Amino acid sequence: MANTDVWLESLITKTPQEGRALAILMSRKTIAAIQTDPEKRKQMRPDYAEDTVQLIQSAQVVAIEFQTVAQANNYWRDAK
Amino acid sequence: MANTDVWLESLITKTPQEGRALAILMSRKTIAAIQTDPEKRKQMRPDYAEDTVQLIQSAQVVAIEFQTVAQANNYWRDAK
Amino acid sequence: MANTDVWLESLITKTPQEGRALAILMSRKTIAAIQTDPEKRKQMRPDYAEDTVQLIQSAQVVAIEFQTVAQANNYWRDAK
Amino acid sequence: MANTDVWLESLITKTPQEGRALAILMSRKTIAAIQTDPEKRKQMRPDYAEDTVQLIQSAQVVAIEFQTVAQANNYWRDAK
Amino acid sequence: MANTDVWLESLITKTPQEGRALAILMSRKTIAAIQTDPEKRKQMRPDYAEDTVQLIQSAQVVAIEFQTVAQANNYWRDAK
Amino acid sequence: MANTDVWLESLITKTPQEGRALAILMSRKTIAAIQTDPEKRKQMRPDYAEDTVQLIQSAQVVAIEFQTVAQANNYWRDAK
Repeated sequence: MANTDVWLESLITKTPQEGRALAILMSRKTIAAIQTDPEKRKQMRPDYAEDTVQLIQSAQVVAIEFQTVAQANNYWRDAK
Repeated sequence: MANTDVWLESLITKTPQEGRALAILMSRKTIAAIQTDPEKRKQMRPDYAEDTVQLIQSAQVVAIEFQTVAQANNYWRDAK
Repeated sequence: MANTDVWLESLITKTPQEGRALAILMSRKTIAAIQTDPEKRKQMRPDYAEDTVQLIQSAQVVAIEFQTVAQANNYWRDAK
Repeated sequence: MANTDVWLESLITKTPQEGRALAILMSRKTIAAIQTDPEKRKQMRPDYAEDTVQLIQSAQVVAIEFQTVAQANNYWRDAK
Repeated sequence: MANTDVWLESLITKTPQEGRALAILMSRKTIAAIQTDPEKRKQMRPDYAEDTVQLIQSAQVVAIEFQTVAQANNYWRDAK
Repeated sequence: MANTDVWLESLITKTPQEGRALAILMSRKTIAAIQTDPEKRKQMRPDYAEDTVQLIQSAQVVAIEFQTVAQANNYWRDAK
């Protein structure tokens, strides 16, 4: 992850669903920060997308990130 | 997960049990966002539904998602 | 888990220990929601009850669920 | 875990260290609730006490339980 | 981690993205505190950077650290 | 862990970095409470210090403990 690539300007999203998308993006960006080679990341994709263990663990990361996003947005309580 | 499929309009549910159902839905939607092929997801189902390790890990994801849902709903304290 | 089976009416319990029991119930209900066949769940029981790795992971799920229950109950601070 | 065995009367402890002991007790009690045979639990002990992977995972359960205990006790801020 | 190496003066960062970078740094510093030999850490790098399971687990650590950083910064709510 | 060994008098630390050190200590003390034989713990050290999977999982425990310590210290917001 080059420092110059600003991908997280804010944790605030308009809707809960946008918050989910942000949580997924956050998870992916961490992996990209550790495995910086995009080609390798692409090759790895079948490893986890077709392995239920890894899919479940990925879902756990997203759940944790979403906790942060949801709290930042006060659970979008006023949105509805 | 197509962006056009709005499945999370709100984190607010009427009852704790509906909150559980939402937490399970959230977990599943993350997996669907990573493994986008519904046919493959269907084929994978026995992998985790019959493996206790994966069932326990799935339960962990749901527990984390439910923390968020419960907090959003103020633990349904006024509901009962 | 049939939707008609309402098992979670409230997160409020009278005592911390009842809260523990609820946390364990919550974990079990998630697994029952994923593996819906009670016969299969019964067959699987030795898999995790005799494997320390899985026992520890189960304990982790319960710990997470209990965080939610304890917070809902304001940690039963007034109970004692 | 027999329902009659009341082991968790309160989450409140006098000191942080007592809170740690309670967190460890909570973890152990969950495992005892799943694997109810004390003889089997005793036999299993070397499995996890001599396996670093399982020791680390046990430490994780305790860390999560301790979060709850610490929050219940307002982090013992007034104690010192 | 030598005690003399002060790398964490504050949890406060100017932007959410700087908070992400701090969360990654925190994760790395823990590993450096356990495996103190920099040469060994360097040799290990391919182990986790090319293994999706470990990448996902690393992402989980970062997600947890980020929860702390985000809360410390009040989710940078005033920043935007 | 002998009950007489009081190692956790308070969760309050002067700086965030001291908080990190405390989080690491907490993780280690749990492991020492389960594997009480110091000689065995010493022998096990290479098991986890040279295995990236275990290093990452250790980092996760520390991250969770640090959440507690950071919250106890109000994120050291006034310290800087």
